[in-house]
Amino acid sequence: MPAQPAQTAPVTVLGLGLMGSALAAALLKAGHATTVWNRTASKTGPLAAQGATPADTARDAIEAAPLVIVCLTTNDHVRALLEPEATALKGRTVVNLTNGTPAQARELADWAAAHGITYVDGGIMAVPQMIATPGAYILYSGTDEAAFATHRETLSALADTKWVGTDPGLAALYDLSLLTGMYGMAMGVAQALALTESEGIPPRDFAPLLTDWVIAMAHGTIPGMAEGLATGQHLTDVSNLAMNRAAFPNFTSAFTEQGLRTDLFDPFQDLLDRAVEQGHGADGFSRLALLLKKD
Amino acid sequence: MPAQPAQTAPVTVLGLGLMGSALAAALLKAGHATTVWNRTASKTGPLAAQGATPADTARDAIEAAPLVIVCLTTNDHVRALLEPEATALKGRTVVNLTNGTPAQARELADWAAAHGITYVDGGIMAVPQMIATPGAYILYSGTDEAAFATHRETLSALADTKWVGTDPGLAALYDLSLLTGMYGMAMGVAQALALTESEGIPPRDFAPLLTDWVIAMAHGTIPGMAEGLATGQHLTDVSNLAMNRAAFPNFTSAFTEQGLRTDLFDPFQDLLDRAVEQGHGADGFSRLALLLKKD
Ligand SMILES: NC(=O)c1ccc[n+]([C@@H]2O[C@H](COP(=O)([O-])OP(=O)(O)OC[C@H]3O[C@@H](n4cnc5c(N)ncnc54)[C@H](OP(=O)(O)O)[C@@H]3O)[C@@H](O)[C@H]2O)c1
Ligand SMILES: NC(=O)c1ccc[n+]([C@@H]2O[C@H](COP(=O)([O-])OP(=O)(O)OC[C@H]3O[C@@H](n4cnc5c(N)ncnc54)[C@H](OP(=O)(O)O)[C@@H]3O)[C@@H](O)[C@H]2O)c1
Repeated sequence: MPAQPAQTAPVTVLGLGLMGSALAAALLKAGHATTVWNRTASKTGPLAAQGATPADTARDAIEAAPLVIVCLTTNDHVRALLEPEATALKGRTVVNLTNGTPAQARELADWAAAHGITYVDGGIMAVPQMIATPGAYILYSGTDEAAFATHRETLSALADTKWVGTDPGLAALYDLSLLTGMYGMAMGVAQALALTESEGIPPRDFAPLLTDWVIAMAHGTIPGMAEGLATGQHLTDVSNLAMNRAAFPNFTSAFTEQGLRTDLFDPFQDLLDRAVEQGHGADGFSRLALLLKKD
Repeated sequence: MPAQPAQTAPVTVLGLGLMGSALAAALLKAGHATTVWNRTASKTGPLAAQGATPADTARDAIEAAPLVIVCLTTNDHVRALLEPEATALKGRTVVNLTNGTPAQARELADWAAAHGITYVDGGIMAVPQMIATPGAYILYSGTDEAAFATHRETLSALADTKWVGTDPGLAALYDLSLLTGMYGMAMGVAQALALTESEGIPPRDFAPLLTDWVIAMAHGTIPGMAEGLATGQHLTDVSNLAMNRAAFPNFTSAFTEQGLRTDLFDPFQDLLDRAVEQGHGADGFSRLALLLKKD
């Protein structure tokens, strides 16, 4: 049980970029005594105005609370910041919400364990504007689920909490996987908007069609692809890889005819070619996930 | 005005692949006298059982109706099929629902105009299973909007009709643009499922998260990207290109660590690098559409 009631439990936030600032603001709003530190000290100003206690050094900030939330640009920065502070961190819980890889999370967890620090890794499924609003959630994983449970109520001030397991790499894996889906969509949307723009179609006219279409396709294809992977049954009577492969040169030709680059989509043609050459022409898109494994 | 009431107007369908067969079945169901032809004659069987009249030759089929719907694999096949039949087609309307490029549509329209044939190009926003169901629609364009209007009621038996303009290339352009959005999403989903699969996360557990996330991101990013392009204002305070560029090596590292290929996403890293190097680091994703133009 935490020393203070969870709704006012003290928390420290290290890193006050766009995201760290949003996290600290949400904690303050929920009534937590929040100590903040940022490399560039001026960024503590707006949070101090909201009631945060600025710390002069990362060590001072760490010593102010049993729960230390870290949100920097990359995990290299996290290691550089935390490693000299192992002694101060001992006995505390670090929740690292910096975007990283599963391997980085596991290394940080190992380092923390070796120094008596509890380590929880997290992946934020939200932009800063969505923090503490419905629909936002944060994925968490770590070896010590009980430590997570202790701080869960505090963390829920940031966004819904989704515990994904005791392998510290899992939150990062889920996070990267979801964002990979988003990046693919963003590539498609950027190329689609470039294509309509090249013909003078107003983006505001086209966007509603594109939004509806992408959403309909997400509903239609994602569960089906997952089902193919789950069952090992990839054959389809809807839209097979051979047909998509045959149609795809239309896309790259159209990009070229309209004065656009093709490079975002060239590897997709290669993938479809590979699928058909390996005898998977009658399969659906679920097969593609298997073909992304390195030989 | 058509000679017959629209709900029973005779129609010809050339090409009875998965899609052509679905189109012919929908016309029959709506009560149209439907003549069908396919290179491989055996595919007329199931449609004849539903009431279609099979024709021995494409010419016989063409001569059976004022409206000729064509749906083959590519427009090369369409040209090869229709060019010898210019005389039979004279005075009729060809609605070409084969997937193609705007340039191909314009060439076919020019060829048709030179032979007294009315040409309407179309893009089907549906898989065969969705034909004649709510939500499916077909984009149409062509120089002769009146001819389209004459046949609109008949065509609405296939799916909702969406006329996009008198440039015959526009339906193909919209179609390719929407499908480009879908292909980008499919790339992202395939890579995301490969990533979770590499760690043994059951695809059926992950798929609902991924579906919800992609849909939330489509709602969140597509209108915003269109707005950026419409206004020329690309700066963002949500998730800028510099931050995404800094985070992206995590993705390719994770792919590699998990035994996956990176090639679908390498060009995206290049694009983000280019964006930042050209001074657009503070911009949002809308900037990417502009950077896809060939220099
Ligand atoms: N923004 C989003 O939409 C979003 C969404 C989900 C996850 N995330 C993740 O959240 C993390 C932070 O993102 P952000 O948007 O807050 O980025 P940001 O606005 O660029 O802020 C980066 C933060 O990291 C600090 N930092 C960088 N290098 C440092 C170092 N060597 N030592 C100490 N501090 C250092 C910066 O301090 P200075 O102020 O001194 O530069 C700043 O506080 C990233 O991992 C990002 O991927 C962001
Ligand atoms: N299926 C979909 O999900 C979907 C969705 C939207 C748009 N489309 C588009 O619809 C078109 C047809 O797709 P589909 O799914 O029906 O493909 P499909 O099942 O592969 O059928 C292809 C059709 O084209 C015919 N064909 C090919 N080459 C020919 C030639 N040289 N001469 C005469 N006929 C020829 C085939 O005849 P044989 O039977 O003799 O081979 C068959 O009727 C494509 O352009 C596709 O991009 C399909």
